[in-house]
Amino acid sequence: MAQAKYLTGDAAAINAFIDQFDVFLIDCDGVLWTGDHLFEGIVETLELLRSRGKKTVFVTNNSTKSRPDYQKKFTALGIPSDVEEIFGSAYSAAIYLSRILKLPAGKNKVFVIGEAGIESELRTENVPFIGGTDPNFRRDMTPEDWQGIADGSHLDPEVGCVLAGLDFHINYLKLSHAHQYLRRGAVFLATNVDATFPMNHSFFPGAGSISIPLTNATGTKPVALGKPSQAMMDAIEGKFRLDRGRTCMIGDRLDTDIKFGIEGKLGGTLAVLTGVNKKTDWEAKDAIAVPAFYVDKLSDLHGAAQ
Amino acid sequence: MAQAKYLTGDAAAINAFIDQFDVFLIDCDGVLWTGDHLFEGIVETLELLRSRGKKTVFVTNNSTKSRPDYQKKFTALGIPSDVEEIFGSAYSAAIYLSRILKLPAGKNKVFVIGEAGIESELRTENVPFIGGTDPNFRRDMTPEDWQGIADGSHLDPEVGCVLAGLDFHINYLKLSHAHQYLRRGAVFLATNVDATFPMNHSFFPGAGSISIPLTNATGTKPVALGKPSQAMMDAIEGKFRLDRGRTCMIGDRLDTDIKFGIEGKLGGTLAVLTGVNKKTDWEAKDAIAVPAFYVDKLSDLHGAAQ
Repeated sequence: MAQAKYLTGDAAAINAFIDQFDVFLIDCDGVLWTGDHLFEGIVETLELLRSRGKKTVFVTNNSTKSRPDYQKKFTALGIPSDVEEIFGSAYSAAIYLSRILKLPAGKNKVFVIGEAGIESELRTENVPFIGGTDPNFRRDMTPEDWQGIADGSHLDPEVGCVLAGLDFHINYLKLSHAHQYLRRGAVFLATNVDATFPMNHSFFPGAGSISIPLTNATGTKPVALGKPSQAMMDAIEGKFRLDRGRTCMIGDRLDTDIKFGIEGKLGGTLAVLTGVNKKTDWEAKDAIAVPAFYVDKLSDLHGAAQ
Repeated sequence: MAQAKYLTGDAAAINAFIDQFDVFLIDCDGVLWTGDHLFEGIVETLELLRSRGKKTVFVTNNSTKSRPDYQKKFTALGIPSDVEEIFGSAYSAAIYLSRILKLPAGKNKVFVIGEAGIESELRTENVPFIGGTDPNFRRDMTPEDWQGIADGSHLDPEVGCVLAGLDFHINYLKLSHAHQYLRRGAVFLATNVDATFPMNHSFFPGAGSISIPLTNATGTKPVALGKPSQAMMDAIEGKFRLDRGRTCMIGDRLDTDIKFGIEGKLGGTLAVLTGVNKKTDWEAKDAIAVPAFYVDKLSDLHGAAQ
């Protein structure tokens, strides 16, 4: 059984750890911050990594924000960042649609369940879509909807894909449309399938809550474009031309972050204990993934490695 | 492997089949009607069974309607019925709560996700509840909701149970409340967990679409009170004092109706081909359940068995 090496307080081990890598893929929620609360020492820690010539890439499954939205959050919290350093699951989905899936003309529209972040990333990749934040889909079912969805007259014949992400405005009308498109053969994508979403120091239903009713009703699982999907890793590798062996994934979740790094055959993975998972989770017999390294909090890298 | 006996057109076999039973538990959607379309010959077939002294009980997983609502539908479609012949999953859930679960005082409120049918059945059993069709829960999340749900100040401390049924007004606010109650130890019930809901000659997301995001986010499966749950069979047996060996379940779905009858050790099960499942479904290697008998449509019982 693999063992996670504890780095907190061990300056020599931390320096060796940092020297081992050129690129750090860093999860955000639970690592840099929780909700709108920035953890102490984060700015200095990122500064340290960059001052040693390391590339930092922020990899998030949160699809409700676009990369520019995300950068605003970094700026508001006082973290210097470049929009090109940010890689979210909405962007990952947009790239997958435009560069890999390449739906045929006449069947290339995407029915979106999700917030504005998905829409703006699809726009940057020129992927046509319907649904999303359109007020026409933010309402109750009418008798005409039941009929029109069932017989297809309310459906757009050009829709060839359903893309499901976290949607704070989820409703039965959207689920019914998506369900019917899937029944008629649409490709099923999800920005990510996280079961929960961390907010206000607690948890709320995550993006997986949007796609799983559709999976359950159709028997089809979506291709997920967020961590731990290797489709996202491939897109990151393609964009940043990174050397996987010299890259480390840093995150708080075993089922997304750490699994993502291990399955992506990165040189290392670092778990932090400021988010979802605890040490006992990877020490459990049926642990979903075991990190190579761990620290109590990300800023422990800074404390010892001046 | 069990074989299903085909009865359509075989008068002798149909008469022997009918004689074998005293009670017929009959599913509604996909057997008697689809949506608001009554299948031909249904009235005459029920008439035939009753004229031979058989008891008919209508067993439905649809929780959006109460028994009196359901009876209105029977009457509107021209089917004579008694409200006491109708057994729905909302009623089954109400009975389970009041007579079996018996939540302690001070922790006996139910947070309901669902339509009015659940509410009226809970009222008949004097089970206190919140949520349901309350307009305060039919709206978007506010910043105060995020905070109040996370810290518990928006939660009712007397809620000891979450009951999830099909809700055409599902939203993120309701899911977030239910999720937080479950995280805090509430008992998780579902009227039923049907993946799909038949309407307008097609399918829509079913009650399972409401509970499965919560199961996914909490790791806890609900106790389901609809078919094929044997909690429902026990309640039916208790109410009608039926002899299981002389009872037959009639339905269109293998995963609910036929499984329900087989696991309930009834004397027989009859599949009809007017709904979800086809003959190939139970002839498949990994068939979820194999009926003892099948007909093309329920009225085939009438055609041959004059």
